[in-house]
This record gives sequence, structure tokens and C-alpha cells, in this order.
Amino acid sequence: MTMTITTPPRSLGGAAAPALPSSGTLRPLGIRQVVITGGFWAERQGVNRRATLAHIGTWLEREGWTRNFDLAAAGALPEGRRGREFADSEVYKYLEALAWEIGREHDDELESRFRETVARVAAAQEPDGYLNTMFGRPGQDGRWTKLEWGHELYCLGHLFQAAVARERSTPGADDGLLDVAVRAADLVCDVFGDDGIRSVDGHPEIETGLVELGRVTGDRRYIEQARLFVDRRGTGVLGGIEYGQAYFQDDVPVREAEVMRGHAVRANYLGSGAADVADETDDQELLDALVRQWDTTVARRTYITGGQGAHHQDEAFGADFELPPDRAYSETCAGIASVQFSWRLLLERGDAKYADLIERTLYNVVATSPSSAGTAFYYSNTLHQRTPGEPVDPDVPSARAESSLRAPWFSVSCCPTNLARTFASLAAYVATGDARGVQVHQYAPSTIIAELAPDREVTLRVETAYPADGAVRVIVESAAVGEWALSLRVPGWAEGATLEVSAGGAVETRAVAPGYAVVSRDFAPGDSVTLRLPMSPRITRPDARIDAIRGTVAVERGPEVLALESVDLPEGVGVDVAGLVTADPLREEDGRVIARLAIRSSTDAAWPYGQTAEGGASTVVEAPLIPYHDWAERGPSTMRIWIPEAAPTR
Amino acid sequence: MTMTITTPPRSLGGAAAPALPSSGTLRPLGIRQVVITGGFWAERQGVNRRATLAHIGTWLEREGWTRNFDLAAAGALPEGRRGREFADSEVYKYLEALAWEIGREHDDELESRFRETVARVAAAQEPDGYLNTMFGRPGQDGRWTKLEWGHELYCLGHLFQAAVARERSTPGADDGLLDVAVRAADLVCDVFGDDGIRSVDGHPEIETGLVELGRVTGDRRYIEQARLFVDRRGTGVLGGIEYGQAYFQDDVPVREAEVMRGHAVRANYLGSGAADVADETDDQELLDALVRQWDTTVARRTYITGGQGAHHQDEAFGADFELPPDRAYSETCAGIASVQFSWRLLLERGDAKYADLIERTLYNVVATSPSSAGTAFYYSNTLHQRTPGEPVDPDVPSARAESSLRAPWFSVSCCPTNLARTFASLAAYVATGDARGVQVHQYAPSTIIAELAPDREVTLRVETAYPADGAVRVIVESAAVGEWALSLRVPGWAEGATLEVSAGGAVETRAVAPGYAVVSRDFAPGDSVTLRLPMSPRITRPDARIDAIRGTVAVERGPEVLALESVDLPEGVGVDVAGLVTADPLREEDGRVIARLAIRSSTDAAWPYGQTAEGGASTVVEAPLIPYHDWAERGPSTMRIWIPEAAPTR
Repeated sequence: MTMTITTPPRSLGGAAAPALPSSGTLRPLGIRQVVITGGFWAERQGVNRRATLAHIGTWLEREGWTRNFDLAAAGALPEGRRGREFADSEVYKYLEALAWEIGREHDDELESRFRETVARVAAAQEPDGYLNTMFGRPGQDGRWTKLEWGHELYCLGHLFQAAVARERSTPGADDGLLDVAVRAADLVCDVFGDDGIRSVDGHPEIETGLVELGRVTGDRRYIEQARLFVDRRGTGVLGGIEYGQAYFQDDVPVREAEVMRGHAVRANYLGSGAADVADETDDQELLDALVRQWDTTVARRTYITGGQGAHHQDEAFGADFELPPDRAYSETCAGIASVQFSWRLLLERGDAKYADLIERTLYNVVATSPSSAGTAFYYSNTLHQRTPGEPVDPDVPSARAESSLRAPWFSVSCCPTNLARTFASLAAYVATGDARGVQVHQYAPSTIIAELAPDREVTLRVETAYPADGAVRVIVESAAVGEWALSLRVPGWAEGATLEVSAGGAVETRAVAPGYAVVSRDFAPGDSVTLRLPMSPRITRPDARIDAIRGTVAVERGPEVLALESVDLPEGVGVDVAGLVTADPLREEDGRVIARLAIRSSTDAAWPYGQTAEGGASTVVEAPLIPYHDWAERGPSTMRIWIPEAAPTR
Repeated sequence: MTMTITTPPRSLGGAAAPALPSSGTLRPLGIRQVVITGGFWAERQGVNRRATLAHIGTWLEREGWTRNFDLAAAGALPEGRRGREFADSEVYKYLEALAWEIGREHDDELESRFRETVARVAAAQEPDGYLNTMFGRPGQDGRWTKLEWGHELYCLGHLFQAAVARERSTPGADDGLLDVAVRAADLVCDVFGDDGIRSVDGHPEIETGLVELGRVTGDRRYIEQARLFVDRRGTGVLGGIEYGQAYFQDDVPVREAEVMRGHAVRANYLGSGAADVADETDDQELLDALVRQWDTTVARRTYITGGQGAHHQDEAFGADFELPPDRAYSETCAGIASVQFSWRLLLERGDAKYADLIERTLYNVVATSPSSAGTAFYYSNTLHQRTPGEPVDPDVPSARAESSLRAPWFSVSCCPTNLARTFASLAAYVATGDARGVQVHQYAPSTIIAELAPDREVTLRVETAYPADGAVRVIVESAAVGEWALSLRVPGWAEGATLEVSAGGAVETRAVAPGYAVVSRDFAPGDSVTLRLPMSPRITRPDARIDAIRGTVAVERGPEVLALESVDLPEGVGVDVAGLVTADPLREEDGRVIARLAIRSSTDAAWPYGQTAEGGASTVVEAPLIPYHDWAERGPSTMRIWIPEAAPTR
């Protein structure tokens, strides 16, 4: 594999990164400045490139969602249109994923798939810039008449992100996608501007898409339109629905809200778009409001996996501390959207807590959803599977995957394309630069090139087996003359971490606390800094207010949440009769964490509520706890992260 | 109030009871044989008669659901039809409630409301007997083409029940309702018989309706049709839906199922209809299957309130031991349907466990749903309210009541009419008779007349302040010559109950165990039997497998589950920071149960999962625990039944 690594100047088009704020504390590095060269995430990027993208392309054709554009171009709609209101957006997210992947490493086949799909999309655009296969034709609902559920602006937001991804990763490509996006965005500004329809889309997404398109094109009008959308929401501009206005965050204005609520994907996309608007309009008050909501949401409404959204019914956040593991919705897309929101706050404020949540969510939601083969996915990422599901048919789309097994596709299939674009652009979340130096937020074998100032470039190589091992060695390959600061994130869980600086022939080791460990010096090529993170498995207990997991513990190791899966227990024993003997130490053996578990006998009482708690005799077994993201790869099973605490054994 | 009490012979038309099995262990007594004369349930019957029935009549007109029949008769459909697929059934359940209420005590106004409504329904019936306002006309879907969601047969089942109620409570009334039912039933048999459409309705209900209509008319064809419907279900005869075939019990045949699953109302109506079929066809194998399902469902899938259904999304049972209190769906109608199913098994098998669950469900689901005024209702009966809801507008129908407050009506408004028919016929669930004697299952001030055999009649008077007090005195007012047995149910929770027999000038007291306490003798008028049930509040702990309430306790007193409501805590303190100090005794004061509660200070951690459990300093307060059915009568509040157990206080 040959990689051509270039460092484009930060300008219009900028670094090849999904978000490029104009202000803020930290400056993103793009996917040509950071390359993940091996390990946990490179493996997933490879599966995404080799298997998932083709899988998506096939299913988009099979379901007719790409063909909808051909029908539109041929004037043959509405007959034959297939898929839900948001089907167009899946094609756009597929384009975005292809764009990043081509930018990461050119490939003729990917490029031709990309160009062919863009041509089909472009052919469906109407003369005035309108683009949607579901609305506006005779026999269809009128344009912009179903803002609550129509997803018209939502789809365009994803179109804009695809065009931005392409322009940043392959600047000046003559495929026409940026032009399609610009024409659609101009129409949106005409229709929804100050003198236009004073409403918003039921599903936020266009806000961040418009800001990024404004950043790429330099057209401030798009940013102003995004600001209008952010400010309008929360004043009851959308029509009433069964789930209430909070479902699409139309209950309280963004600036006044205290916590994230309603549909979890919507809430996080809105947060991302509002952060983008705040950045471009230097609106610190709006940013403060977002930080406040993020803080409360993380303190009260987030699963240990980083997953968000407790309700199946409306795919929504529950109330504070309402975090049932067995009905965790924790939608894959909500995890991805949360990464996007946290990333923007990290860039603005530079606080390690945002990178902590990103890491947690990447390892325990984003990495959990796809199968190891990259062709089946979780829509919802439960923390507790009570019954082994039925085997999944690889040829049949699932509703939203209630099974314990991953499904190839969904009738609402937002997650596979969202994963694909996230894996393809993942390197952009690894590190940032600023005038003072380089900040490394996520640990993977990688190369990092950062331009601290014109003609002041730093090249780093990261060597690590993380998360299998806790040592992360950052080697300075070349560095500009003069002092600069290398900042390495020490995760919040990493009590007892150390930092070893090997420079100028001397080696110094010191303890470092969670946050950023900073080494400032005039590094010479060959100097290195090694962060050692404590990787012993640790027992974690929940806040007393999280009712649903009272009396249970979880086991974590590094950034990974572990789980007990029934296939690791004696034949026929499900996870729901197991208690973790926390008085006994956890062992590590061949890279696996081994726990001692008390297995209760479980005889039904005629009525399960009595004056004394049911005990049941216990036998004790040893069993491995596996990384949660690896579960359900060995057939139908039961699984739980939160395990009841068992009394000490004799 | 003058009551004319008659004892019709058991024959076609039979006792004025909702279910009249031909075989079985116990024989129902009707609402003219058992009259509730005062106390807890008489109060609710009075509210139902005085307020709820008029409230329902008003809303049925206001929503246009009664008017749908006028439009049908005028040939004006489909334009102007309002309401969901099952709107017709609400009018039928209203008719059933009126029929029982008129049968309980005649009233000219109720009678004229009943007759007027019957006339409007009858006018809409088509010449071939078809009756539904949603299907079959030009511009509507064709008859029987939407069996999954159309509710056509479901609606007819409720029509049959209304006609049966009328015929049993006012035999030979010339209002025409029975004729309407018979004509519709004949059509159903023609269309869905052995040579007809080999399918079922997505919502069971017609099964029990057909059997009862067969019992009233003596037409076995209806019973045979019900048997066909019961036997067909479970073989995948219905089309696939997002929730899967289990949603409408079409996944496993009734005879083979091990547990109740899917939509909880559907499951219980199906159980009722299948029990009716088993009774009439002497199918003990089918009854055994139902008993097995009931047992497992009660042991694993039922809330302490008797409520059933854990999922909001599909109104369905969760998996075994998946019983989250805060997302308890526990639909009012599922509680009512469960009472109907348990009642049928009680009649067949005579086991007190069925009457135990009926009592629990009546006090803690059925009595919880309506407001004390009888004009607002819970659709879902949560066991844990985390946030005080918004005040409810008494003029606006709710979706399905997510608020902590009851709503006047719902867009899916099955519960108010279901409550009305249940309260109106409630006396029929109090006692049964058989050749050996009388069985009293539920305790209320009442008179009971039972004919043990021709010319062998027993009249009893029950005096009690139950559930405020545990003494239930049954006085023999008149009795046939010879020995007979009086059986009084000792509830499963009543450890330490005693029975005092005062007869022939002697008084004897003995301890009695849960089940039926039986006194057999040749009673003389004035003899009495007094059951004394222990009414001290008791602390109840859950089975260790019910994850969602691990580490918590509930307090019960007699048949009532108690709850902690925030309005009884210091100003501004919600229920979620309270722990019950179980080491300290519960007190009773002025009829209220007073508990000692540790109130935790609750400061957020930035991340709510840590290596040590969050404690938080506690202060201890005393607060009353109220009967759960009384909650949310004092404005928006938080509430919980299951309270975390707090450590002993110094």
C-alpha cells in the first residue's frame, strides 16, 4: 500500500477533515495528515473499504434507493419509488463514504462507482436546484409541505456533507457534486430565508451541512441560513406529533435547553450544527449552552458504552438516570452523531472530556455495530440480551434488529452508511494541531504530519498495540526548529498512568493525571515520548440513581467495556443467573479477562414477589469476559454488561 | 336506592354475568344475585354510573365515533368518518356498560341512551349482516382485506358481548341489539367457516364474543367458529408486521405456547376466548395449555400490581423477568383482559390463585386508571414516575398518556369504555355457587343469593370495611335446609389469617392458610363466619432475576400495593433520592402507613460510572406511603412503588 501524503494549506477547502471550524482552540488535521497504519482501527477501515462499501452499493440498488434518482430523471416518479422518506440520504452518505475512502487512497473502481452515482443524482436535480425523489411531482406531496416527517432538508444536509467530503479530500474534482450541492443550497436559502418559510426540518442535519458548505465555498449565506434554522427550532414551529415537540427538539430553544432530549440522533446532529454555527458566528453564549447540555447529558443520560437513547418507542433519550440496559436503544447513528458533537466541542474548547467520550463511543458503540466481516450491523446496541435471537437471514432486511444477531440491512437503514463514512474519515479524529504544537487524542499506530505555522512542520510516528496493550510510543520523525508542545490525552479512567520522555539521550519518567500530558521542548528526530496507561481490568459501579442497574457491576479494561456472553458459560446456562464474585480478583490469561461467577439455580416461585428475597444455591465457575464490541460473533447468545454482584465464595 | 333482586334459573340467557361456562368447577352468579352494597367498589360503581358513562357518551359524540354509524346509514361514508380502525368497538363497549348498568338498576335515562345508540348502530348494518364503518364501501378498503390491522372481527366481538350483556341483564328486551349481533355472527360464520377465509383477526376478541353469543342463543355454530379462530392462530396465517408474528400471537399455536407474549391485551383476550372454547368443547388439553401459560406468565412476566405488558413500543410483554417499573406499560385494558382470563380459569379449575391475581389487578390496575371523579384515566399504569408531568387539558385527548396525570380521552381510547363495562359488571366477580355451596372470592359489603339446587337457595350478607380493615363477616340470612359449604378465599399474602365461626350459639376460631377456608354445616339464619386477614403493612422483595428492581423493596398492605409520592416528601424533593430504611418498623397512623426514608443528597458526577459507588449524605424523614391507586390526585408529582433499600440509620 502506497500512500501519497500531502499537507494542503488551511484555506478554502482546507484539511481533508469532516469538520473545519474557523475559530476554536484546536485545529483539525485531515485524513492525509493523519494515517492510521495498523491495529484495531486500521483493520476496521480495511473491512469497510473491502467489504462494507460494496455491500452498501449492492443493497442500495437492490432496495431501489439509487434507482429512485433514475426514475426522477426519467420523469417516471412517483410510480416505482421505493424506500422511506429518507432513502435519498443513504445514497448521499454512501457518496460521502466513497469520497473519504478515495481521498484516503485512490482506487479506480471506487472512483468510477462514485462518479457514476453522482451522475445519477445530478440527473435528478430540477432546474431550480430542488433535489428529492419523494416530493413535488404530480401525485406526490408538495415540496416542503411535510417538514415534520418529510426529511427533505435532512437529505440535503447529507448531500452537502458528501460534496464537502469530496472537495476536501479530492479538491477540484470535476464530478459536479459540489455544483449540485451549491444549487440546492441556494434554493434552500431562497425558500427558508428571513422572508421565506419560517420553519425547520423535523430531523436536524442541514444545519451542519450548510455550515460546512459555507466553509468550503466561502459563501456566508449558507452559514446565516444554518443560524436561522438553529434559532427557529424550539419555539414550536413544527406541527404537533404523538411523541411531543421534544422528539425533534422543538420544545425549548437550543440556547435555553439544559439537557439533550428527544430523538437521540436528532439531538446530536442539532448539537453539531449549533456548534458549527456558534463557531462561525463567534457565539460563545450558544457554545456555553451546548457545553452545559453535553455535561448534563453525559452525567445523567449516557450509557457506560457511550451509547445514547434509552427508548425504543421514539428512539429517544429517557429521563435523567433512566438507563435500562435491556432496553437500551443506543442507536448506532446516535453514537456516531455523539462523536460528531463531542468532536466539535473538543475543537472549540480543547477539554479532554470530549475526547474521552469519543474514545468510549468509538470502541463500544461504533465498533460494536458492524460484524467482523463488515456486512451485518446492529441498529440498536443493547447492553443486555435476555434471549438468544433467531438466526438472521443475510438476504432479508430487518425492521430494526431486535435479534441478538446483526442484520445485513434495515428498512430504516441509516446505520450502515453512517458507519462507512465514519470509518473512512476516522483518521481525522486522531490528532489536532495548533500554533503551540500537536495534540494526540486517540491512540492507534499512525503517522501524523502537522504544520504548526508556515514552514514549521512536525512529523510523528505512533507505535502501539493499544488497546491490547497500554504503551503508546510517539516518535518524532522530523520537527521544525524550536520548542513545541506534544500533548497526549490521558483518559479519565487511567489513574496511575506514566509518561516517559526519551530525548537528547536522557530518559525521564513521571506520573500523569487524566487530561492532557504535555511535553514542551525542542524535539530532535528520534526523540520519543511513551505514555503507559494502566490496563488492568477494573470493576465499575453505577451512580445510585441509575435504578435499572442497582446492585450490579461492570468490568472495563482500558477503553473497552467488557461483557459476559452465554457461549462462554456452561452449556445451557444463560447470563441471567450469573453473579460476579467481586471479592475474588479478576485474572488475565492469554489476553483475556477471566472472572469468577456464581451461577444461581433458578426455580420459579408461583409469584415472584415475596417477603424474603429468593436466593438459590450457587456454584462458582470461571469464565472469560469479552470486549463488548466482539459479542454475538459466535451464534445466538445471551449477553450482559452489568452483572449482579455476588457474595464472596467460601 | 331500591334493588329488585331476582334469581333467574340457569338456562339460555342464564345468570346476568359476563361469562357463563357450560361446564367447569364453579358456577357464576350474576349481577342480580350479587349486589355490592357499599365500600371501596360500590363507590367506584357509583362514580361510573353517575359520571363516567355520561363522560364517555359525550366524548363518543365529540370525536364522531357514534356519528360514523349515522354516516354509514346515510350512505355518506367514507367522507367524514373519524377515528381509528377500532372506533366502532368503543360504541359497543359503551353499550355493554350501559346494559350492565341498566340491569343493575333500571334508569329511564340510561335506557333511552342505550336504545338510541342501538338504533343508530342497527341502522348502519348492511342487508347481509355486515357491520363496520371503516370497510367495504366505495373509497374504503374491501371487507376482510386488512385482517392484520383492520379490527373488523375485533369490533364484532365487542358487539356480541354488548348484545349478550343486554340479553342476560334485561332478557327479552325488544331493542334489536341481539338480532343485529346474530345477523353479523351468521355472516362471520359464512365468510370465515371451514370453506371460507382461513384466517383470523389481528386482534383477538371475536373468539370470546362468539362463544358467549352461542351460549345465549344456543347456536353451536358460533362456538365452532370460535374454535376455528383459536386453532388457526399461531400458524402464521396473518401477514408479517414490523413487530413480528408474536405481536398478535400468530407465532405459536395456542395449544403449544409456553407463556403469554406479544401485545398484552391481545394475549389475554385470546386466552379468554380459548378458555371459553375449551369449556364448550370439553377440551381439557387446551385448558391445560392455558393454565401452563398463565402460571409462567404470572411467575415471570407480571408486575406486582398485577399489571402486564412491559414494552411501550408494541404494548407487549417483555422477556421473562423483564419488568422495568419506570417503563411499565401495564395497560389498563391488559389488566381488564387479565381479569377476564383469570376469571375463566377460576371458573374452570376453582384454584384460589386466579382469584388472587384478579384481586391484585382490580385494586392496583383497574382502580388506578380512573380519577376519583371518573372523568380522567390512565392508559398506561407506570410503577415509577421520574418526572412530574405537565398538567393535562381536560378538553384535549391525549396520545396514550405519557404524563403523570390522567387524561380525559385518548386517540386510542379503549380504556375508558373497558373500565365502564368492568365496573358495571363487577359484582359478577365476587362470588360463585355450585351444588356444594357458595364461594366468596372478593370481599366487599354485599348481598349474595345463590341457588344450590332448585328450591335450595342461600342468602348471605357480607359486612366488611375491607381493605381498610381485615375483618370480613359473612352472615347467613336464609339458607336451604341441610348441610352446605361456605368457602372464603384466604389471599396468598395473608399468612396468619383466622376464621371465626359463630353458629348454633357457639364461637370457634381457627387458623386458616391461603386458599379457600371452607365451613360445612347446616347453617341457621343469623349464623356467621368471620375471616380476619392480617393487614399490617409488609415489605416485599423481588425475585433476584427481575433486574430492574434489584436492591429495592415494595410495601403492601392487604391487597393494596403502596407507593411513595413526591407530594408527601419535603418541598422540592423527588422520590428518586429516597431510600426506605427497612430496619425501622413501618407505623400505621390514622389509617396511613408511615415509613422512614433516607433522603440522599444528589450531586452529579461528571461521569456516573466509577470505581466506587456514589453514596451521598442522607437525612431521614418520615412520610406516608399511599395506596398506589390513589396516586396523582394531588397535581403533578413523581412516584415510585419499588424503593431502594437504605442502610439502618443511627
